[in-house]
Amino acid sequence: MNALRTLIESRRFEAVITALIIVNAITLGLETSSTVMARFGGLLMALDVAVLAVFVIELAARFVVYRTDFFRDPWRVFDLIVVAIALIPSTGNLSVLRALRILRVLRLVSVVPSLRRVVGGLIAALPGMGSIVLLLGLVFYVFSVMATKLFAATFPEWFGSIGESAYSLFQIMTLESWSMGIVRPVMDVHPYAWVFFIPFIVLTSFAVLNLFIGIIVSAMQEEHESTASEERSAMQHEQETILAEIRALREEVRSLKS
Amino acid sequence: MNALRTLIESRRFEAVITALIIVNAITLGLETSSTVMARFGGLLMALDVAVLAVFVIELAARFVVYRTDFFRDPWRVFDLIVVAIALIPSTGNLSVLRALRILRVLRLVSVVPSLRRVVGGLIAALPGMGSIVLLLGLVFYVFSVMATKLFAATFPEWFGSIGESAYSLFQIMTLESWSMGIVRPVMDVHPYAWVFFIPFIVLTSFAVLNLFIGIIVSAMQEEHESTASEERSAMQHEQETILAEIRALREEVRSLKS
Amino acid sequence: MNALRTLIESRRFEAVITALIIVNAITLGLETSSTVMARFGGLLMALDVAVLAVFVIELAARFVVYRTDFFRDPWRVFDLIVVAIALIPSTGNLSVLRALRILRVLRLVSVVPSLRRVVGGLIAALPGMGSIVLLLGLVFYVFSVMATKLFAATFPEWFGSIGESAYSLFQIMTLESWSMGIVRPVMDVHPYAWVFFIPFIVLTSFAVLNLFIGIIVSAMQEEHESTASEERSAMQHEQETILAEIRALREEVRSLKS
Amino acid sequence: MNALRTLIESRRFEAVITALIIVNAITLGLETSSTVMARFGGLLMALDVAVLAVFVIELAARFVVYRTDFFRDPWRVFDLIVVAIALIPSTGNLSVLRALRILRVLRLVSVVPSLRRVVGGLIAALPGMGSIVLLLGLVFYVFSVMATKLFAATFPEWFGSIGESAYSLFQIMTLESWSMGIVRPVMDVHPYAWVFFIPFIVLTSFAVLNLFIGIIVSAMQEEHESTASEERSAMQHEQETILAEIRALREEVRSLKS
Repeated sequence: MNALRTLIESRRFEAVITALIIVNAITLGLETSSTVMARFGGLLMALDVAVLAVFVIELAARFVVYRTDFFRDPWRVFDLIVVAIALIPSTGNLSVLRALRILRVLRLVSVVPSLRRVVGGLIAALPGMGSIVLLLGLVFYVFSVMATKLFAATFPEWFGSIGESAYSLFQIMTLESWSMGIVRPVMDVHPYAWVFFIPFIVLTSFAVLNLFIGIIVSAMQEEHESTASEERSAMQHEQETILAEIRALREEVRSLKS
Repeated sequence: MNALRTLIESRRFEAVITALIIVNAITLGLETSSTVMARFGGLLMALDVAVLAVFVIELAARFVVYRTDFFRDPWRVFDLIVVAIALIPSTGNLSVLRALRILRVLRLVSVVPSLRRVVGGLIAALPGMGSIVLLLGLVFYVFSVMATKLFAATFPEWFGSIGESAYSLFQIMTLESWSMGIVRPVMDVHPYAWVFFIPFIVLTSFAVLNLFIGIIVSAMQEEHESTASEERSAMQHEQETILAEIRALREEVRSLKS
Repeated sequence: MNALRTLIESRRFEAVITALIIVNAITLGLETSSTVMARFGGLLMALDVAVLAVFVIELAARFVVYRTDFFRDPWRVFDLIVVAIALIPSTGNLSVLRALRILRVLRLVSVVPSLRRVVGGLIAALPGMGSIVLLLGLVFYVFSVMATKLFAATFPEWFGSIGESAYSLFQIMTLESWSMGIVRPVMDVHPYAWVFFIPFIVLTSFAVLNLFIGIIVSAMQEEHESTASEERSAMQHEQETILAEIRALREEVRSLKS
Repeated sequence: MNALRTLIESRRFEAVITALIIVNAITLGLETSSTVMARFGGLLMALDVAVLAVFVIELAARFVVYRTDFFRDPWRVFDLIVVAIALIPSTGNLSVLRALRILRVLRLVSVVPSLRRVVGGLIAALPGMGSIVLLLGLVFYVFSVMATKLFAATFPEWFGSIGESAYSLFQIMTLESWSMGIVRPVMDVHPYAWVFFIPFIVLTSFAVLNLFIGIIVSAMQEEHESTASEERSAMQHEQETILAEIRALREEVRSLKS
């Protein structure tokens, strides 16, 4: 048991797993080429199964070692899901699952520390975005319902249902073909449609901008706080030395009196 | 009266209103689907009327409690307008008002504190943008008039009037199809049109960029000020302690003399 | 002479000029509408000439008062140019000058202090951008020459000459239709064209990004410096007080000895 | 030897080389014009060869002076490569090398100090981007493989191979024609394709945004650190003076006792 733990926590084991993930990434990539598959298909498939087997054994070993603690580390849960996808039989309607096998390559994130830190940082930025994302969602919902009510009859392809309207508005928010592709044709039928779309663009751009600024400011503040608090403590240490010296001096002056 | 005030300011009342807004958001969303309307149309309409009735009663209650203070809180005025829209008979030319009913869902912003704070923050960022928005408006006006004078005869669809020119220039500012869609066709007729459009793009991009930077800097400064002033006050407190100690010491030295 | 100086520097005079600029902006705007011109054309033209006459007299007055100092204030030179444009006879080939008359409205910038400050700020940001703009220019030149050499024969419309290549590359830098409109068609003939265009996009995006960051950082630093130096001076004042107290104390201790 | 070193390190020599680079930039630019080539082709070619000869002699001189140190300065290596390109015979398949001759103009960067500093700054920003660029690369690879598996059969033109998928996804990341050009046609066949593309857009935008923020924060921190450390050292100097004074005072008080 302890030997197993030592093994799976060793740097060499980690390196082997990393290498296997990269090998798997390459084989999965090569599988998309029909010419390669025609010649080396069997080999690639065999390699894929072999790597998958190692991953399953590795996860089983981790499960044996950590038991219920296994689910405490979100990265291990991520590994589990990503490996599990490959084990689901992907026939018939589930053929899309075959495409998801490549997600296994994302295990690289959970294995390489620098990638792990970057992804951790990105995820840490999410909670601060909560309110503004909720607001954006609300704005999207309101504008989608309005667009559907106003334009569903005349432009069913773009604004036929709330879902289609939300998709079209997302496209408009990214500014892709918003005018030539969508708003100008709409304005040929509803001349005042710009009263709806221009405020939508300005509003969502402004919201996204503020989302952006919020992340910058909080990232900067964090950075600043850590350096500032160091400085401050150095400064205060000095001040306290001064204060101690003065008090000692006062004591001596008092001793002079008596 | 006081009982009514206690009621409408209670957290439970707030929760009920929030729930009703969400229910209303869902019913208004479902109303856009013709299949849902065919089956549950009557029920949805009834629910809509019921929720609206509760909102009217709620606003009336608030009006009774706060009286003239009612109009002091801009959020209450916002609630009033949004509910009032639903009460205007929306027949004939005013059928667009039916689409505005969904704006009622925005009451969620005035009820949920975190959303309220975010929107407050966005609105607070506006005054700092005043001058540069005025400048952008001026630039738009000048370029719209010039575009109309230069291209109205040859491209009436895009630059036929000041309004159409302003719309086309807004599209160009967002960079949507500016070259392939507009400037290249214009350049086929007026080969030097790029002398007009490229500076416009550079100028407005630069102005928008500075608008953006202005918001970042002021947001950061605010953040910085609040933490810095804390630090500073801690520091100054320490310094004052030192000064007081020294003065007390001097007093004691003086008492030695005499 | 002094009376004239007092007049043109008075707030009332400034207000009159501002009002005239706004009136002129409206008349110049209305002149673009053929229906308005058919009815009120004579009146608008008369107003335009009258306002222009006032501007000429105003500039003459300023010239009389400030004489050679007149050209020291860049805003006054700007006013002069903008008014002078309207005086050039705009017939024949110079008909484009008629469109430039609207530039007169930009006098508003030189008259309204808040706009003046914003534009001053924008211009102040320019020198810091010098080196990176020069670098961008160099990159554009190099890529334009390369694009012309590589694609002039096959795509003369987009890359026929250095000028046309520079325009197309500017369009690509703004990401407008870069792939569907230009690079995909080019890749149909030159399959490796992406080796040229993708690095160009990444490079120029990165350069523009750094231009942007440079402005943010310098704007922020300026802001920070001004608040920090205030803090620092308050702090140092306190420290000097402490030092003075200690030295006075030392003097007193010395006087004890003797 | 030393005379040669003095020569190539003199400002005059530098100015001559800079001038020659600019002359060469102009001749290389003019060579793209067939009308200019028809009239002055011989002269331009001769100039080009002459300048190239000077560059070769200059590099040889530098090599003689610095010997093995020559390769220590990356700028010199850059100069060498850029000049070497022009010496490779560019016939047949290598005709693309003729277009690369213009890269010689980039020597301007290695010669003009302000450009050198800007490029140095841009390169210095790269290592901090390492992890996030690696992550972006991983995301691109995973999505490219998935896109190829899902859409290769139906849209071979865009997603036929991993390379084509990566190119199309890069286009989608830049938001160029992503919806009207690619995702809407794909959705006509695979109605749920948005489940694949919208997360891709949001994810990569978020990653690029964070890349951007990372650069801003580190640039700002550097700036801040340098000014803050100055302030701090000034402050600490003052504090040390105070401390020294107090200790001297204490010494005097002690001498009173005895």
